[in-house]
Formats: sequence, C-alpha cells, structure tokens
Amino acid sequence: MEITFLGTSSGVPTRSRNVSSVALRLPQRAEIWLFDCGEGTQHQLQKSGLKSSQIRRIFVTHMHGDHTFGLMGLIASCGLAGSGQPIDIYGPKGLKEYLFAAAKYSYMNFGSRLKIHTVESGLLYEDKEFSISCQLLKHRVPAHGYRVVEKDRSGMFNLEKAQALGIPPGPIYGKLKQGEVVTLEDGRKINGKDLCGQPEIGRKFVYCTDTVFCDGAVELAQDADVLIHEATFAHQDADMAFEKMHSTTTMAAQVALLAGVKQLIMTHFSPRYAPGNPIQLDDLKQEAKAIFPQTKLAYDFYTHEIPRRREEKNKKVKVAT
Amino acid sequence: MEITFLGTSSGVPTRSRNVSSVALRLPQRAEIWLFDCGEGTQHQLQKSGLKSSQIRRIFVTHMHGDHTFGLMGLIASCGLAGSGQPIDIYGPKGLKEYLFAAAKYSYMNFGSRLKIHTVESGLLYEDKEFSISCQLLKHRVPAHGYRVVEKDRSGMFNLEKAQALGIPPGPIYGKLKQGEVVTLEDGRKINGKDLCGQPEIGRKFVYCTDTVFCDGAVELAQDADVLIHEATFAHQDADMAFEKMHSTTTMAAQVALLAGVKQLIMTHFSPRYAPGNPIQLDDLKQEAKAIFPQTKLAYDFYTHEIPRRREEKNKKVKVAT
Ligand SMILES: [Zn+2]
Ligand SMILES: [Zn+2]
Repeated sequence: MEITFLGTSSGVPTRSRNVSSVALRLPQRAEIWLFDCGEGTQHQLQKSGLKSSQIRRIFVTHMHGDHTFGLMGLIASCGLAGSGQPIDIYGPKGLKEYLFAAAKYSYMNFGSRLKIHTVESGLLYEDKEFSISCQLLKHRVPAHGYRVVEKDRSGMFNLEKAQALGIPPGPIYGKLKQGEVVTLEDGRKINGKDLCGQPEIGRKFVYCTDTVFCDGAVELAQDADVLIHEATFAHQDADMAFEKMHSTTTMAAQVALLAGVKQLIMTHFSPRYAPGNPIQLDDLKQEAKAIFPQTKLAYDFYTHEIPRRREEKNKKVKVAT
Repeated sequence: MEITFLGTSSGVPTRSRNVSSVALRLPQRAEIWLFDCGEGTQHQLQKSGLKSSQIRRIFVTHMHGDHTFGLMGLIASCGLAGSGQPIDIYGPKGLKEYLFAAAKYSYMNFGSRLKIHTVESGLLYEDKEFSISCQLLKHRVPAHGYRVVEKDRSGMFNLEKAQALGIPPGPIYGKLKQGEVVTLEDGRKINGKDLCGQPEIGRKFVYCTDTVFCDGAVELAQDADVLIHEATFAHQDADMAFEKMHSTTTMAAQVALLAGVKQLIMTHFSPRYAPGNPIQLDDLKQEAKAIFPQTKLAYDFYTHEIPRRREEKNKKVKVAT
C-alpha cells in the first residue's frame, strides 16, 4: 500500500501545491484508488508516473470544486486513452447528478463502464482482501471520510512440523490452522498457534477531509496505520476554522491521538501559510507534533508506504476455549 | 495586443502541452480576454505570470471538455482571490446550463458579477476601441470562431502646422482633422491629411478551433494580423481530420492563404505527433509553410505580440470630394 499526494492545497492551487487528491496504490492488484479529484489531478498523475489506466475506484469526500473539478477531465482522458477500465466512483448526494449534467452538456457518453455510487455512513465495498467504509464528517456541506481496511491474513501453517508431531490426518488440521487448541487421542494438547506463522495484520488507511474536529473522524480513524487529516489552519486561526468548518493542526492531532493511529499526515493547507508569510507550514507541523509526535506534513508527490505488519506481542490472542 | 498560448494540445494534456486556452492581453486597458478554458488553465495562468484578476471576458468556442473543463475552477479561484472583477463569458448553447448545473452541485454562487452570453454568428460586443464577432465553424458539435477587431485610430492633428499656415479658427479645423480637403477664404486648398499623422490601422485577431476546413473560417479570418487556427492532424491523416471534423496543417494554411492573413499560428495538435513518433510537429510546420510561409507553431507559454501598424502606402485613401 502506497500513498501518493497529488494535491495538498485547500481551495485554490498554488505554484507548488495543487488542490486535493490522494492516490492509494495497491501493488498486489495493480490498482489505484483515488481519493478526491480536484482540477488538474490528471496532470498530477501524469507527472507522478502513476498510471491513470490503473485507477479502479474514486472516492469523493464532498462536492466542493477543489475536490471534484478534475473528475470530468480524468474520466474523459481515461476514455480517450482507450484503456477503458471500469471505474466505480463513490461520493455524496449530488455527485451523480453533477457528473451526468457535465457529461450531457459536454457531449460525453460514459457508457457502461462508469458506476456512480451515492454513499451513506457505513460499509461501501468489500472483497476478499479489502473493505471500505465511510463516515459523515462535519463540514459546511455533507462530507464523508473514508476508511480502507485490509483484512488480516492468518500465518502460514507449518505442515511438516505437524506431521513430525505425529498428528494423524483428519479435520483436526482445519482446527489447528484456525489457531485452535485441540486434544489428540493420546491426550496431548496441541495449540494450533504454535504451528502457524505469525498472522499478518491488515493495514488501515483513513482519509478525513474536509471537516472541523468531530467524533466521526475519531471513530473512523480508530487504530489506523495512517490517518490523512486536513489541517487547513494554524491553531491561532481557529476562529476561521470553526467559521469555515475546517480543522486546525491541533484538531487534526487530537483526532490522531484519540483514535490511537500510528501516523498522522496533515494536508489541505491554506495558501496563507505559503513561504513568505508570518506563519508557515513548519509552524503548523510543530503545533501538531506537540500533541501527536508522529505527524508529517504532506506535499505534492510525497509518497508514503504503509508497511505490512505482524501481530504485536501484547495483542490479545484468540484461543478456543 | 499580446497573445499567450496556455494550452496547445488537442483532447488530452501531455507532459508539455495543456489542453486549449489562449490569453489575449490588452495592455492599454489592463484586461485579458481568454479564448477557451480547458482543465488546468488557471494553473497555466499562474505559471505564465498573467494575472487572472485581469480576465474580463472569456470566449468559449464549443462545449467539448478540453475547451471548457477549466472554467469552473477559474471562476471559483477568481472569486476566492477576492478580486471579484465582473466577467462576461460568451459561448454556444448549453454553456450557461452547464455552468449553472456545475455551480449548483458544487454549492457555488456566481453572484451578479458573472454574465453568460449565448452566441450566434455576428457581432457580439463593441466599445470605442474594439468589436468582437463570431462565426459558426464546422465541427461535430456547434463551434464558433472569434474575431477581435481594434478600431482604426486617425492620426494626430498637427495644430502648430495649421496655425503656421494661417488657417483661421472655426469649424474648418473639425473638417481638416477628419482628413477632408477645404478651401480657405483666400482661395488656398488645404488637404487635412497633410496636417494629420498617419492613421493607425486597428489590429485583427482571429481564433478558429475546432473545425475542419470551412468557408466560415476564411470569411472570419479576412485580413487578420494573426489567425490562430487548429491543426490537429498532419496532412497524411486527413481521413481522421474529416472523420473527427478537425483540420490538417494544409487546411489551416489554406484558410490563412485565402483570407490573406499576415501570420498563421497553428495549435491544438494531436498528441500522436509528440517527440518520438514517426511524424512530428516539425513535419506539420513544413507542410503548412509549403502553402503559407508565414506559419508558426504554438507551444505552451509562447507569447506573440501583434504590433500596431500604420496605414499602408497602397491603401486607398479617403478624400472628401
Ligand atoms: Zn470543502
Ligand atoms: Zn472539439
């Protein structure tokens, strides 16, 4: 799982930061899932080296233009390039109507490969490897955060070791593979976990924007490996944050802290903190780190890999009783 | 009058060419008139150093997305930047509906400063200095070319010389300033033209895209100082040009020749001629130059100044009879 930031400015593009978009690359299935798609996202994809032909799903947080105005161009270019992959787009009420209106007046025909889903808080999608859910946040217009959860993989069963222990063939193996404790006919108790490699814990990626501090974000971000949270404003501009229903650095850090995430990456910065201004992005970083040390600031084309992880020692182990 | 190309690729952006947009800067009034506005035009404006706060009019040729998908972002950014200048947008049927639909679903409010005009062939706008007309071209969907005409300015009247000739004060001066021949009471005939500097001929700028070769383009481009004409395809790809109703290089050159323009600048090139392909842009240039030598190829950020010009010697002079 690899995250690439394609736009990290709020509202308007600046010379160095485009408006919102984040690509989540899933190398194991050669797919990209895109989160938001501000104007110029297809240009940023081109510069990043990511292949837009790999885009399989697009999740839209809310309908403000700095998160959506790149959708039509991207869809058109995916079609023109002849790649013709199916694309599922998820977003709030109005997204479907917007896309169909824009297509109509632009003489575009989506065909059948584009599916548009209107989201509500809850589970959106699930397959063998992943599930995605969303949660309503708190913005001037309906905005949803998204949570991608990779399912846990059980550790590899050591068949040789089982055979060496003289465990007779049969349904016992199934139980052992599940990590259960079984009693053999000769009275020996065998713990399946001793025969399995360490399970691999699925990764959790959470994307929260645009929102002022809210419980929904904390809930959505529980135990995430990476939480991307907007931090439009510095702490001292909290008035503006409340007025415009955006977050300050300290709100983002508090969400990370309360949700017990491993890494916070802040994004969606107001252009008012660009170099040359009294408060700058490094100040924003320090403010957040004072509350949540594992904080990074996103910048355009920053790529962050979420490593696979094994079960932790202190994690409660499931044992059959 | 200064032209800056902001996008010169057809259909999709490439790494070096964005989709269509051309800025016409009118330094005498600190205004920019924009022709087409593909996705990323506001980014290109930012890079070009042109001030989007100076944009006063936007002319849209047709509703294909590579000419329009940058409109909403640009309008939003002009508003957010607080510049709040009034903007008049001209374009075909459907433009108004498109913009209002996009605004509605994006929770945007244009307010009163945005005026959207639906164009039909003929005069669109006129003031003391300029007039703008448009003409239907020949594309898969309704597309209009635009012609900007600067009005002629009469030469400066030499008052000192008139007084030295002993011309008595009175309405005679008004006639002389118009370049008329007047007879003084003492019988002398004075030609007003001899007392006026050379008139300045207004400049003519014509923008034709998207279109296959058509008489409308020839008519619109009559005597233009600069004709910008699309040349999506090389001559050998004329089949595709006819099928998609785009122009080849030779069509663009023929329009320039038949219209008697001074300078042809070709744009809207298919990405198929990018470096590394069998036919390249230099080939397209040679094809056009064989027919119309005063041909240039546009590239992103290319700036072309249209100089003021004085009346030509062989031009018919208006003399009062
Ligand atoms: Zn927003
Ligand atoms: Zn077109």
